[in-house]
Amino acid sequence: MADVAAKETKKIIIDTDPGIDDAMAIFVALQSPEVQVIGLTTIYGNVYTTLATRNALHLLEVAGRTDIPVAEGSHVTITKGTKLRIADFVHGADGLGNQNFPPPKGKPIEQSAAAFLVEQASLYPGKVTVVALGPLTNIALATQLDPEFAKNIGQIILLGGAFAVNGNVNPAAEANIFGDPDAADMVFTCGADILAMGINVTHQVVLTDADREKLAMSNGKFAQYLCKILDVYFSYHHDAYSTKVVVAAVDPSLFTYTEGVVRVQTNGITRGLTILYNKQKRFGEVTEWCDKPTVNVAVTVDAHTVVKLVMERLIES
Amino acid sequence: MADVAAKETKKIIIDTDPGIDDAMAIFVALQSPEVQVIGLTTIYGNVYTTLATRNALHLLEVAGRTDIPVAEGSHVTITKGTKLRIADFVHGADGLGNQNFPPPKGKPIEQSAAAFLVEQASLYPGKVTVVALGPLTNIALATQLDPEFAKNIGQIILLGGAFAVNGNVNPAAEANIFGDPDAADMVFTCGADILAMGINVTHQVVLTDADREKLAMSNGKFAQYLCKILDVYFSYHHDAYSTKVVVAAVDPSLFTYTEGVVRVQTNGITRGLTILYNKQKRFGEVTEWCDKPTVNVAVTVDAHTVVKLVMERLIES
Repeated sequence: MADVAAKETKKIIIDTDPGIDDAMAIFVALQSPEVQVIGLTTIYGNVYTTLATRNALHLLEVAGRTDIPVAEGSHVTITKGTKLRIADFVHGADGLGNQNFPPPKGKPIEQSAAAFLVEQASLYPGKVTVVALGPLTNIALATQLDPEFAKNIGQIILLGGAFAVNGNVNPAAEANIFGDPDAADMVFTCGADILAMGINVTHQVVLTDADREKLAMSNGKFAQYLCKILDVYFSYHHDAYSTKVVVAAVDPSLFTYTEGVVRVQTNGITRGLTILYNKQKRFGEVTEWCDKPTVNVAVTVDAHTVVKLVMERLIES
Repeated sequence: MADVAAKETKKIIIDTDPGIDDAMAIFVALQSPEVQVIGLTTIYGNVYTTLATRNALHLLEVAGRTDIPVAEGSHVTITKGTKLRIADFVHGADGLGNQNFPPPKGKPIEQSAAAFLVEQASLYPGKVTVVALGPLTNIALATQLDPEFAKNIGQIILLGGAFAVNGNVNPAAEANIFGDPDAADMVFTCGADILAMGINVTHQVVLTDADREKLAMSNGKFAQYLCKILDVYFSYHHDAYSTKVVVAAVDPSLFTYTEGVVRVQTNGITRGLTILYNKQKRFGEVTEWCDKPTVNVAVTVDAHTVVKLVMERLIES
């Protein structure tokens, strides 16, 4: 019985830049029997990669899950000469709400994030889902490292893009895509099974102050810890961006999707813009979207059920 | 009484690349007492500029309105080294449905389109509306020629852009903006009173085969002529793109609008893309949309009333 359950469990690797909402996302994943977290890979974004690695190790220690390996990811973008854009104004200077947590005891594994992704995908072909919560540099490097990666990886669920809405860095671009546009374009066109969740969807799921109170009152394994770090985050927004992406791995039926080809603008004033071609129009000319594989883009979310699921998992002891 | 009416009439200059739908738009304008057509300026797009000039002269001769001056516009884009993209596959090789019309007897005036636009705007400050039906090269040249043009011109109503929908040249770009992206960005940010009508709106107004039959049966001044040239056009689409833009000059209340800053991507795979910043989000950083003037972008159209008005004007003798 246990064996059957284990077989049905989805192996996931979370590519993460924790980050307060990433901390919540990791905790929800660890509390979800539908998925088995087989590793964390780290990336810059909310914080620099070095701090992302430190925070990933710290969060696994808080969770008592130091059995899960952490592989450190890229410190630089694939797009050459790009200055990293670090969102520490949202997450605090340490990425976790300025709580002065002690340094972690553990260390990342020797493998790079990209090498770890390639290895796990080839060990369990079609069985590993990458949940990508930051810029897509590590995933793009994995596709470069191993031409079979796109075929071996089960699915890539990514937090990124602004489809038919304004971005959050500027009117054109969403932060994770803007963080490394060339990497994003490589990933979107690599041929893997991809599910993109853009800010058009992510703004629909919101944790309220009442939800935070509920966490504060509960004996949930991670509730007290999360309440502390949520303070800083809630002063910016209440959206559970990253957590939703983990929920999409746990229960894809809570979202609806559209299919199309996504390309990323890599320079100019709309650098980091994602353009979805939904194939409803035909063009007389060859376009940059022709002959590229389609991906799925989330359109709507059952926000009520997502919040309910997240709260249940976090309140559970 | 006649004098009062004349004062209330809106002076319009139609910047045009006829083109079958532009022919219809010009005829509707000539039949509309709310507007007074004080000139046509020509541009490449549906056809090359030389042919656009010839067709503009021809259409005014068909209409018996050779009193209206035609000023020839630019033959090249402001964006350097751009190959012109001519849509003769939609409009026939001669732009007017391959009817082998005789060459016009008249000639364009000596002034260039840009010089004519500048002159008229300064002659009647705040009173002239430009209805721009093609790439925005002439209007951009007018803003370069005279720094006061943006202030002097009453309004620029332009057919262009794809706001939050796929384009018609490729998934990113609409044809008129794609035709000269640098010109479009200059016009959108010049500070004039601008109303943009993109293909998100224009696809909502459609002439049916029944409407064409109605024209064929009528004694309208231009009905028979239009029926002939509509044949070629109807094999591609039934949308009265340009005509709608003229209707917006005749009765702006048939549309709803949103306000924001529009910038145009001028290179890369999304070259010609229009991004509207609707000011609903605030950004932590200075963006390319900051400190730029807002424009109005059409959102919805009372399509039924627009078609009714167009048919009435065309069926009138």
